[in-house]
Amino acid sequence: MAGVVESREWHLTAYAPEGVPTSDHLKLRTVPLSLDVDSIPDHHLIVQNIFISVDPYQRTLMSGLEDGLYFPQTKLNEVVSATTIARVIGSKDSSYREGDIILNPFGPIAEYCVIPSALHLRKVDPASELPLQEYLSSLGLPGFAAWVGIEVLGDPKPGSNVFVSAAAGGVGMFAGQLAKLKGCRVIGSTGSDEKVKLIKEEFGYDDAFNYKTETDLDAVLSKYFPNGIDIYFDNVGGEMLEAVLNHVNTHARIPVCGMISQYKKIWTERQGVRNLLNMVGKEVRMEGFLVGSHLNRFGDFAKEMESYIKEGKISSKLKIYHGIESYLESLGSLFTSSNFGKVIIEVKK
Amino acid sequence: MAGVVESREWHLTAYAPEGVPTSDHLKLRTVPLSLDVDSIPDHHLIVQNIFISVDPYQRTLMSGLEDGLYFPQTKLNEVVSATTIARVIGSKDSSYREGDIILNPFGPIAEYCVIPSALHLRKVDPASELPLQEYLSSLGLPGFAAWVGIEVLGDPKPGSNVFVSAAAGGVGMFAGQLAKLKGCRVIGSTGSDEKVKLIKEEFGYDDAFNYKTETDLDAVLSKYFPNGIDIYFDNVGGEMLEAVLNHVNTHARIPVCGMISQYKKIWTERQGVRNLLNMVGKEVRMEGFLVGSHLNRFGDFAKEMESYIKEGKISSKLKIYHGIESYLESLGSLFTSSNFGKVIIEVKK
Repeated sequence: MAGVVESREWHLTAYAPEGVPTSDHLKLRTVPLSLDVDSIPDHHLIVQNIFISVDPYQRTLMSGLEDGLYFPQTKLNEVVSATTIARVIGSKDSSYREGDIILNPFGPIAEYCVIPSALHLRKVDPASELPLQEYLSSLGLPGFAAWVGIEVLGDPKPGSNVFVSAAAGGVGMFAGQLAKLKGCRVIGSTGSDEKVKLIKEEFGYDDAFNYKTETDLDAVLSKYFPNGIDIYFDNVGGEMLEAVLNHVNTHARIPVCGMISQYKKIWTERQGVRNLLNMVGKEVRMEGFLVGSHLNRFGDFAKEMESYIKEGKISSKLKIYHGIESYLESLGSLFTSSNFGKVIIEVKK
Repeated sequence: MAGVVESREWHLTAYAPEGVPTSDHLKLRTVPLSLDVDSIPDHHLIVQNIFISVDPYQRTLMSGLEDGLYFPQTKLNEVVSATTIARVIGSKDSSYREGDIILNPFGPIAEYCVIPSALHLRKVDPASELPLQEYLSSLGLPGFAAWVGIEVLGDPKPGSNVFVSAAAGGVGMFAGQLAKLKGCRVIGSTGSDEKVKLIKEEFGYDDAFNYKTETDLDAVLSKYFPNGIDIYFDNVGGEMLEAVLNHVNTHARIPVCGMISQYKKIWTERQGVRNLLNMVGKEVRMEGFLVGSHLNRFGDFAKEMESYIKEGKISSKLKIYHGIESYLESLGSLFTSSNFGKVIIEVKK
């Protein structure tokens, strides 16, 4: 393939310390990109993005606040990044050929781009019967995050009482299903009655509740956990974490995957968790984690999850936005309880 | 030995939800106790306490607040409990003889008492060259708590940056010294300039500061930890924990032994920790612990600590109060930064 394409990409024009980023902060621009393979350095690839993963942590890279969050802030005027499924359309690495499909973590949110070939996480087997977009969901980092939290850090036992917040979200939906497959009793929380239904009917949780219509989280947890909580898969932090700490059993585990309730606020304005002392009396282990530190287990995860998916034991729900222009809207949807399951942009059919 | 003694003991007459317990809550009473061994059940011992351990957690059993703390609340009119070093003066268990010295965890704070023989943690070797009171300090639960936090949960490496709060206290003094013996760089915080001196000169910490005369904990930690904190041995919770979470390195460990700043308050009035989100980005593991869950390692600990003490590699500081009547004063001293090292009552010479 040769010639030049007009490629659209999202870049950051201003930081958004508060609220959800808008068109004041993120703008789409069109840049020309050569598809001539001779124009790129050795060990690089020209790729065309097919699917782009939209995740809550991306918002934390646009705040301009260097307050100990996940990764360094995106620089102003730089293209924002995401994990994508991409097709190789030019290769200067003998391991890749035109037409290969790759999972590309932290690549540019662009229609086309040039990336170092060393960065990719895996090549997708062309013989795979699974839809490509599952490599950004059940078989990608969201599924892996759920697996690390439940299976590596959570130590689930048959009969363990497991609570998952943001249970209809991209990670939460798998966390609860993996815990169910280990024989646990699993309850989820989410932000709408429609999602409560989804969690119970499609993801097979034992029960679920809508935290937005509950006035007393403590009473809700007493109701759903008469025998206390053994594992809390935390996606939200804040008030819910505080409520959970009043219901933990001895030696409870709290893998913390994220704290979406906390991303929009400057830390000194966040509501503090006042009952951490309970962690001593109940000997609770709380552990923040990033999937990048567990990549040595990715193969184990992929094998297990692929068989669950093929056997129909895990259900995956996707919310697909269309066209790269939908990034702003799809990112915002993560913070308004309006999406179901994993949010993905389909860049091009 | 036979006859009847007049034994004094401390009992709880009212709960103290706030502040430090006073003579309104704890009263000394005198009860007659038969020393006739035929008067006690099988597998019981009559013991005379020699030393009584005074520890911060004891205060949490007198609040009347069932808020998830360490152990069940002491019942009104019951004798309060502590770990003691006691002499057996009558035995209905063939493993014990009159004159044996035992470490008796959670026994009555009394001059004499009858206890089930199954409860003791260890018999003290009469050939031991170490002073008996060390079995309540370096060789007892405080030393063991320091060892569990640093060596079992802390994973110390040569060069690790270690911070210990309440570093002149009964547990803190050993935590820092054990970390030093593992080749770590160790900084401590405490509540008086005199104790800062003690920590540096007697306990051999690399440096120490008085948190009471510092107005900006964040700035202090920046100064003492230019390369961040790898292990925080937490004895205090609250504001100091929040400040630490702004200075943690990736994969930092926070063994939480206690949160003395939090014991006097009803939990909803405690200051919350607002920056737990940092635990995700830095993949921090925070773990509350009680020594009772680690007793299978007590033998390993005792062997290691005894050799450190005999070789003069660990320094132990005791603050001795005299007579059982001093319990109220000695307990109060734990909450006013007025004591050095481990607080112990010598009941009888």
